[in-house]
Amino acid sequence: MRLTINSPFDAHLHLREGDMLKTTTRFATRMFAGAVVMPNLSKPIDTFEAMERYKAQIQELSRDFEPIVALFLNEKTEEEIKRHGDRAFTVKLYPRGVTTNSAGGAVSLDEYGALFGLMEERGDALLVHGETDGEVLLREGEFAPIYERLAKTYPKLKIVMEHISTEVLANLLDRHKNLYATITLHHLLFTLDDLLGGRLNPHLFCKPIVKTAADRAALRRLAFSAHEKTMFGSDSAPHYRGCKERAGAAAGVFSAPVLLPELTRLFMEHSSAGCLRRFVGQNAKRIYNLNLPHKTVTIEDAPQTVENECDGVVPMLFGKRLAYRVAAD
Amino acid sequence: MRLTINSPFDAHLHLREGDMLKTTTRFATRMFAGAVVMPNLSKPIDTFEAMERYKAQIQELSRDFEPIVALFLNEKTEEEIKRHGDRAFTVKLYPRGVTTNSAGGAVSLDEYGALFGLMEERGDALLVHGETDGEVLLREGEFAPIYERLAKTYPKLKIVMEHISTEVLANLLDRHKNLYATITLHHLLFTLDDLLGGRLNPHLFCKPIVKTAADRAALRRLAFSAHEKTMFGSDSAPHYRGCKERAGAAAGVFSAPVLLPELTRLFMEHSSAGCLRRFVGQNAKRIYNLNLPHKTVTIEDAPQTVENECDGVVPMLFGKRLAYRVAAD
Repeated sequence: MRLTINSPFDAHLHLREGDMLKTTTRFATRMFAGAVVMPNLSKPIDTFEAMERYKAQIQELSRDFEPIVALFLNEKTEEEIKRHGDRAFTVKLYPRGVTTNSAGGAVSLDEYGALFGLMEERGDALLVHGETDGEVLLREGEFAPIYERLAKTYPKLKIVMEHISTEVLANLLDRHKNLYATITLHHLLFTLDDLLGGRLNPHLFCKPIVKTAADRAALRRLAFSAHEKTMFGSDSAPHYRGCKERAGAAAGVFSAPVLLPELTRLFMEHSSAGCLRRFVGQNAKRIYNLNLPHKTVTIEDAPQTVENECDGVVPMLFGKRLAYRVAAD
Repeated sequence: MRLTINSPFDAHLHLREGDMLKTTTRFATRMFAGAVVMPNLSKPIDTFEAMERYKAQIQELSRDFEPIVALFLNEKTEEEIKRHGDRAFTVKLYPRGVTTNSAGGAVSLDEYGALFGLMEERGDALLVHGETDGEVLLREGEFAPIYERLAKTYPKLKIVMEHISTEVLANLLDRHKNLYATITLHHLLFTLDDLLGGRLNPHLFCKPIVKTAADRAALRRLAFSAHEKTMFGSDSAPHYRGCKERAGAAAGVFSAPVLLPELTRLFMEHSSAGCLRRFVGQNAKRIYNLNLPHKTVTIEDAPQTVENECDGVVPMLFGKRLAYRVAAD
């Protein structure tokens, strides 16, 4: 079996910075023709210049790869968009403190009314990490009314609910025309039981955390039908081993090395291979009006064993044998 | 403020074996006049002789401390009880595979009918780790019907629901006369948010896992009123640092170094200091008909900082400043 995907796209990716950027771009360039790249670096990417600089860094290390670097939403964003008005922007909203490097995130959405109105007019996209500061199992569901208010107040604003992990948000998707969603591989594969039902696996610890079997089933229904408002977004988010295997481990799953092989297996096993291309690229190209470099990636059913460590980072499914792999060019 | 407790008792304690036994008995003997000691060693304590040997080991390392070693329930238990019929026994039931060293635990309760009938006649106590192999958040609640069936089938058997962690079991306590419960300090203090709501703390990872705020509130209602069918049982369960700060971390919280100081603070803060003595000893003495050595432990409001490591084990609340401490003799 060989499955060929034209210009696969990852709609939510962390490439990080420094030495780690070399590792992450290597995997990204091997499997994808582009990605929406997250701006939560140690110094968040919150200006046009920083965005261009980061994009150039990524392009220098990658090949046939289009990085759509999102702007970190803060008090500078409105001015930046006005100053570079001819560009399309994706803007990432982090509620303050909910995940890695989000200390400078938004406290209240009310102060951003003018920005959202401007983005709505222009056709920019607002990408949202939708969690409150509530109880860990409830904080995504508690964000639903905030999504609804945004969707109603700015009915033409393209709002992307990032890495949805609950049935609550899966069910919200069709209630507002301007709501979209990204879904990760790990939320399609795992539940809390995989994280801590037996022994504790810090390499599956992420935000939003993996949830119940019912939540996973709701996400699977969307993904396996390649629901037209969903996009694959890996949220691959590496941290070095020492930051994961410790007291106070950082949140993030490094899924980059296994994405397309495992997506292929999963979709094959659920008789949904016909929907895979829409889920990992075609939907995103339509939703974001993307013009991606031509890149053909072939997945073949030949086994591989996942490395225990990639440049100091422990990948998801480390040491496990996978049924599929990316075929050599 | 000084609070004196006569012969405090820990109704659920892991003392482990080998070098670790020295560490655990040091803390136990400092704070308690006795404990129900769990039998899930690398070779489970499942005979009278093994029990006596383990008890002697503990007594050699402790002082004024009565270890009630529970028998690990398996196919040998009935014969052992018959052979040593003059002794009172506590028997610990582990469903197979639910926690540390439980691979030899029970598969089906139906095969133990004769044993439970015998224990009922004799007045022995059945201590139960009540979790199914279901989803991690539901497995304790799913055990409720099993508790109910046991309680109805053997109406005079003293059944102790160990380390209860959910509102479901808290609400079950008063529905059957012969159901009792132990409650840990960590389930009174923490929820899933403390384990993984921010960063991930493997030192709060345990079975049953800490749950929601509503679950904790239900346990607090029982403990802070020293409900007559509840007993404090720490379930202090040390693992060396290397077994906790890794991929595939072992379950267990080492709370032994902080138990009485933190219980005192918690009960004081909830205006329940008057109930503390019943919760940490008097209830257990009545329920188990204990005859404990005389030991007076005084807690005083003088700050202390919890060690980062005790003989290779990271204690609960490591590095934290506590308001109370055990006063010197």
